[in-house]
Amino acid sequence: MAKVKVTFQPDEKTVEVEAGTNLLEAANKAEIDINSLCGGEGVCGKCRLILVKGEVEASNKALSFLSKKELDKNVLLACQTKVLGDTEVVVPPESRREEEQILVSEEIVQFDTPKPFEDHPASQREIGFYEPLMQKHFLKLPPPTLEDNVSDVDRILRDLRKKFRGVEIELEFKCLKGLSELLRSNEWKITATSHVENGNCVRIVNIDPRDTSNKNLGIAVDVGTTSIVAELVDLRSGKVLSVEASHNQQARYGEDVISRMIYACSRGGLNPLNQAVINTINALIASLMSKNKISVEDISCVVAAGNTTMTHLLLGLEPCTIRIEPYVPTADHFPPVVAREIGLQASEYAILRCLPGVSSYVGGDITAGVLSSHLSDSSKIGALIDIGTNGEIVIGNNEWMVCCSASAGPAFEGGGSKCGMRATKGAIQKVVIEGDKVNYITIGNAKPRGICGSGIIDTIAQLLLNGIIDQAGHFIKLDHPHVQIEDDVPEFVLAFEDETETGEKVVLTEDDIGNLIKSKGAILAAMKVLVESVGLSFNDIEQLFVAGGFGNFLDIENSILIGLLPDIPKDRIKFIGNSSLAGARMCMLSYHAFEKAEMISKQMTSFELSVNKQFMDEFVASLFLPHTDMSLFPTVKEKLEKTK
Amino acid sequence: MAKVKVTFQPDEKTVEVEAGTNLLEAANKAEIDINSLCGGEGVCGKCRLILVKGEVEASNKALSFLSKKELDKNVLLACQTKVLGDTEVVVPPESRREEEQILVSEEIVQFDTPKPFEDHPASQREIGFYEPLMQKHFLKLPPPTLEDNVSDVDRILRDLRKKFRGVEIELEFKCLKGLSELLRSNEWKITATSHVENGNCVRIVNIDPRDTSNKNLGIAVDVGTTSIVAELVDLRSGKVLSVEASHNQQARYGEDVISRMIYACSRGGLNPLNQAVINTINALIASLMSKNKISVEDISCVVAAGNTTMTHLLLGLEPCTIRIEPYVPTADHFPPVVAREIGLQASEYAILRCLPGVSSYVGGDITAGVLSSHLSDSSKIGALIDIGTNGEIVIGNNEWMVCCSASAGPAFEGGGSKCGMRATKGAIQKVVIEGDKVNYITIGNAKPRGICGSGIIDTIAQLLLNGIIDQAGHFIKLDHPHVQIEDDVPEFVLAFEDETETGEKVVLTEDDIGNLIKSKGAILAAMKVLVESVGLSFNDIEQLFVAGGFGNFLDIENSILIGLLPDIPKDRIKFIGNSSLAGARMCMLSYHAFEKAEMISKQMTSFELSVNKQFMDEFVASLFLPHTDMSLFPTVKEKLEKTK
Repeated sequence: MAKVKVTFQPDEKTVEVEAGTNLLEAANKAEIDINSLCGGEGVCGKCRLILVKGEVEASNKALSFLSKKELDKNVLLACQTKVLGDTEVVVPPESRREEEQILVSEEIVQFDTPKPFEDHPASQREIGFYEPLMQKHFLKLPPPTLEDNVSDVDRILRDLRKKFRGVEIELEFKCLKGLSELLRSNEWKITATSHVENGNCVRIVNIDPRDTSNKNLGIAVDVGTTSIVAELVDLRSGKVLSVEASHNQQARYGEDVISRMIYACSRGGLNPLNQAVINTINALIASLMSKNKISVEDISCVVAAGNTTMTHLLLGLEPCTIRIEPYVPTADHFPPVVAREIGLQASEYAILRCLPGVSSYVGGDITAGVLSSHLSDSSKIGALIDIGTNGEIVIGNNEWMVCCSASAGPAFEGGGSKCGMRATKGAIQKVVIEGDKVNYITIGNAKPRGICGSGIIDTIAQLLLNGIIDQAGHFIKLDHPHVQIEDDVPEFVLAFEDETETGEKVVLTEDDIGNLIKSKGAILAAMKVLVESVGLSFNDIEQLFVAGGFGNFLDIENSILIGLLPDIPKDRIKFIGNSSLAGARMCMLSYHAFEKAEMISKQMTSFELSVNKQFMDEFVASLFLPHTDMSLFPTVKEKLEKTK
Repeated sequence: MAKVKVTFQPDEKTVEVEAGTNLLEAANKAEIDINSLCGGEGVCGKCRLILVKGEVEASNKALSFLSKKELDKNVLLACQTKVLGDTEVVVPPESRREEEQILVSEEIVQFDTPKPFEDHPASQREIGFYEPLMQKHFLKLPPPTLEDNVSDVDRILRDLRKKFRGVEIELEFKCLKGLSELLRSNEWKITATSHVENGNCVRIVNIDPRDTSNKNLGIAVDVGTTSIVAELVDLRSGKVLSVEASHNQQARYGEDVISRMIYACSRGGLNPLNQAVINTINALIASLMSKNKISVEDISCVVAAGNTTMTHLLLGLEPCTIRIEPYVPTADHFPPVVAREIGLQASEYAILRCLPGVSSYVGGDITAGVLSSHLSDSSKIGALIDIGTNGEIVIGNNEWMVCCSASAGPAFEGGGSKCGMRATKGAIQKVVIEGDKVNYITIGNAKPRGICGSGIIDTIAQLLLNGIIDQAGHFIKLDHPHVQIEDDVPEFVLAFEDETETGEKVVLTEDDIGNLIKSKGAILAAMKVLVESVGLSFNDIEQLFVAGGFGNFLDIENSILIGLLPDIPKDRIKFIGNSSLAGARMCMLSYHAFEKAEMISKQMTSFELSVNKQFMDEFVASLFLPHTDMSLFPTVKEKLEKTK
């Protein structure tokens, strides 16, 4: 194949690619991050570039996304355009995938860390409540004599058995190498690192000379599709020393789980996605290390929680069958693996454990959520809801649990909307409409660039409350000064051209509203099916945990107003922040918690909604603001009646 | 350092070494195998070479070994002679270490193989009597449906749990890689290989596409100090397909355990010894593979039994502290290890298991002996004795067991004798003296080159019976035509100059007899101390198992006559051949046997004779033919009285 040159402006970066390569791949090669929600499928329309010069060939798919005006301006979709000769393009600001503003609040860090020994009553200490997955034991062994000449290994195990009574302890083979010399040249003082593989088996994975027990650190990771958050935890004190977060570098292969699966299984293969998540985590670890002046040699474990696909990609397992009926993952429970074996930066012996999941669409992040919300500890009927591209829902208590996942589409993450964007700088995230006046707050107080999920929810709720749209989501007050009609579709202008970063107005169209209604309808319907499957109704939910970074910015009242959350008393609803990270941390700090996570994941009964007839009916009934059955939303009914 | 050339004749091999290197190392470099019982310590005097020309420097040690005649002929000891300039030497035939004649009799092969399923009554089958350490399970899995969409791993485990009820089953991480594709491209037909790690835990170490369950082979290895024997076993039928044996290539670093430890811990380091035993086993495996037209990929396990030092050297563990007080090995129980990780030729996933030992001087070979002799299954009081450089002794039954090890020195292996040699071609191994006539049989019916252990025992017994020596081992019939006096020491000529291969007479000197009396004295004393430690006497021994290759050639009557074995009825004494190999095979064919071996090794109480006062007294009392206390040897007493 002939080689052609592609130049990206204003970066002035030029790469050489084979003729026929598409511009998205060329941009990846040039390390220019282009928005690509769909991962190059040509269905999100986010990867707009402007052609300056050159020979290109665009697919027909692109045409449906581009207006006449855009075509005249030589706008093209990067993923749908092949370069045939030397080409030059401009990357407009809105097509660039910027580092998200990932909020690592104190709240996330302080959340639900199991407390160390000292702070617990004796009874809990005795049952070993606080016993990290990886422990370092400083041993001062008595030197052998003729009367006591058991083998070196037996001498070590004899001491350790006092700490782990009734449990099988094994020294891994690698610990035997050079052990004889190590013991004798260090006056029989060593530090043994134990990995509690399960309640029945403890493995000694490393022997250090002298006392290194004061350096026992772990990394808890929330492997999110969008963002990855890593915490450095002192396994002795249980304290979180530091936390770092970044974009998941996999985003260049698709923004959501589905498009990454498609990439892994057909286009680019598993390896780039596996490498991308490993690189992301390693970068976070490196940053944690340098900020805390710590060596990776002191990291003795990594515990990761993620959805099923993310966990598969992290471990280098094929995610392909997760996506297609009958939705089967390779595994829901993952054996321990040496972290370095899969490329993670940690000590030579550090173990990676991944939180167990339930099914293809209810993963370890949800198990972590149940664990850290203590939903499974309480006799109260609780619900956990994690809102994203998929909405995962768990309902139950300490006796039973059911769960399901509903595909919500990208609406909550800014996809499927004309001006939708992720919750990054410049996104409108809060909206209040008072008569003709529109008030909004943007992330980072920047000039508006678009609107993110929480902003869309606010806007719809406010439009409804102000009688600008009806309960079907149609515009009814067309004379509102912020309502305009573009290409025959009514839209609400949140920010006019002169207010914005880009000079283009930020709007929410009637189509956008329709998309969000579908998304929230899917989640509410799923929740209703799940609640009713166990003979209950929304009102029986005594505690509702809203998990995920998204949850933190959600307005409860508005969420109930549009019918995303059920109409239950507000004091029953609790935002629990990054419960995936909290669960990972808990498991790292107590192997009992890890065992509990295993139990939780086995206990949950998973409902497959794609084959559930009731779900389709409920979904249709939910395509209304808040719902076709207003008796389900008594407080909303009251409010709407007041506004009339 | 300056380089010098060393040429070995008649091989015409020249190597370049640094000036100051000794000739034994130079010979190793030239790959010429020189006899070196002591491993280069200068104490066995077996590495005689003849200097043709060159500049060398000999240590004083050498002088004590060489006669005036030899010094005149420029004979030198290779290990005690440094080369300073270019040198040429001749290697005489008797200084060459020849491949031993290792007898692999049918008897060894057929010994005590646990029988496969078909031959066992149902009751035994049900408790899983015949369940190999590594099993291959062909699974035809039902393809997933929406109603049954458990993960791939759970689908496999669900099937395997039917085979291993109540046992924890884990799939190793490596089996997860590519599993999704493997299952689907093979219509859900796979073969899982399980390793029964212990009674509580089964690990799946490999998944093959389709049905490979008909190829499940294992290698049982007796890792002897002198010889290594390897068997190819079909793990499905329990049949031994083939057996190979060879010299342990470690011999070039010292003939006995002690000299190898010295080499590993001071001179050459652990690595050459580790490599030598691995190479030896790999050569045997290669030979088994080619003879049986089998690929190493079908080898799913290797089970090895050896003494504690041999096991350490095989696994690459430092043996140094085994040799010095308080005699502590790195380990007596060894964790499973992937065979390839330590360099053994087998399938990628094959596991190496080493039989557990009891102490530094009672190793896995003895545990294997107890297991395969069924000593620990019987209510009869039994004894197991393994005679070599060390004599290991076990006494006990199904309720208790005690054991010890006595250093016997090299006498039984032909060391410490003027014409002593190992049991290789040309060694006199059987001797009968009738009046003036001496009848002998050599190994391989070759011209005599020397005399091996069993030949020495026969000779001493016959000399005693014929009144040529007294019970102290002194020559009393100096007028016997075969008795000569050389350098003031009387000796018995077994073969005159004209009968032998080398043209030198083969003799047994009074000093040689003294050495052997010390060796047999140590073993008998150890046995007596051990028997009496549990309040018994020799007569209480209801079955005596004589283990080891040496045992096969031993004459029971002569052994009792000289006081090597106790004077008990001959029908209680049984030669059990290579019980180390038999035990390894049993463990490979049944994990219950392996668990039993673990139990046996933990059950045995080890006596440390080096700190035992009674042992020294008994040793002195045993320095007589057969013993100072003739009441212990009533039948010998009777015989000797008859001959008077």
